[in-house]
Amino acid sequence: MEARIRHARPSDYGRIIGRVNVWWGGREMAPALPQLFFLHFDGTSFVAEDEDGELAGFLCGFLSQTREDEAYIHFVGVSPQRRGEGIGRSLYDQFFVEARKQGRSTVRCVTSPANQDSISFHNALGFDVERVAKDYDGPGEDRMLLVKRL
Amino acid sequence: MEARIRHARPSDYGRIIGRVNVWWGGREMAPALPQLFFLHFDGTSFVAEDEDGELAGFLCGFLSQTREDEAYIHFVGVSPQRRGEGIGRSLYDQFFVEARKQGRSTVRCVTSPANQDSISFHNALGFDVERVAKDYDGPGEDRMLLVKRL
Repeated sequence: MEARIRHARPSDYGRIIGRVNVWWGGREMAPALPQLFFLHFDGTSFVAEDEDGELAGFLCGFLSQTREDEAYIHFVGVSPQRRGEGIGRSLYDQFFVEARKQGRSTVRCVTSPANQDSISFHNALGFDVERVAKDYDGPGEDRMLLVKRL
Repeated sequence: MEARIRHARPSDYGRIIGRVNVWWGGREMAPALPQLFFLHFDGTSFVAEDEDGELAGFLCGFLSQTREDEAYIHFVGVSPQRRGEGIGRSLYDQFFVEARKQGRSTVRCVTSPANQDSISFHNALGFDVERVAKDYDGPGEDRMLLVKRL
């Protein structure tokens, strides 16, 4: 079934947050995704759903308020049942379109240096690795910093 | 020693994230405060420090990108050794000044309905309770929604 991409809505939050821990293999991910992203950044956040409204994936991003040429992707998830169908790519593509429309020429995000699937995915989307930063998101939370020019 | 309030800088992140878990009595708070707030919202985020540069507190906030008249406070912390000195109030006041300067007339934030100290603090700063929302930030994460008109 083809997934449709649309802007996120605050009403999406409940069903998304109820699933992210499961989608991430049981890790406690909810604290990293408070509802604020669906309330205050819905213009740059997107949901993928089936024709019957079943959630297939989502992306939360925002426009940097410090760097006027930058946009940032904070959190992306695709249902384990829907991986490999290009839904992640479609979500990123929609974000790129919106970021460009808002005058942004650079998109940044971070991922775990141990997550080879994520690194390959971002490479395929045209992201370059800037560097791996130790303790970037707290003690023991190393991150690979990724950048794409639009 | 008097605390000085200034804008947050990305270089503040490391020492802040190393302390928040301790400041919150051992709770795992770091996932809720990724470095992005210090990189992309530093214009609306503030640090309080002593004359000798010792960290006394911080506030991370941003301008809503959906609601043009709103600003949002995401995370505030004051060193347990420096509570009761008005540092939290000074941090909020600086945020209110900046939000007003950016054309915002409403400030929102959320707190735990069980945190009586936080509720009293926000009342004293002129916040009103909108409602208590069940599972607001995920399953079991009820929140009291607070609003202040500037």
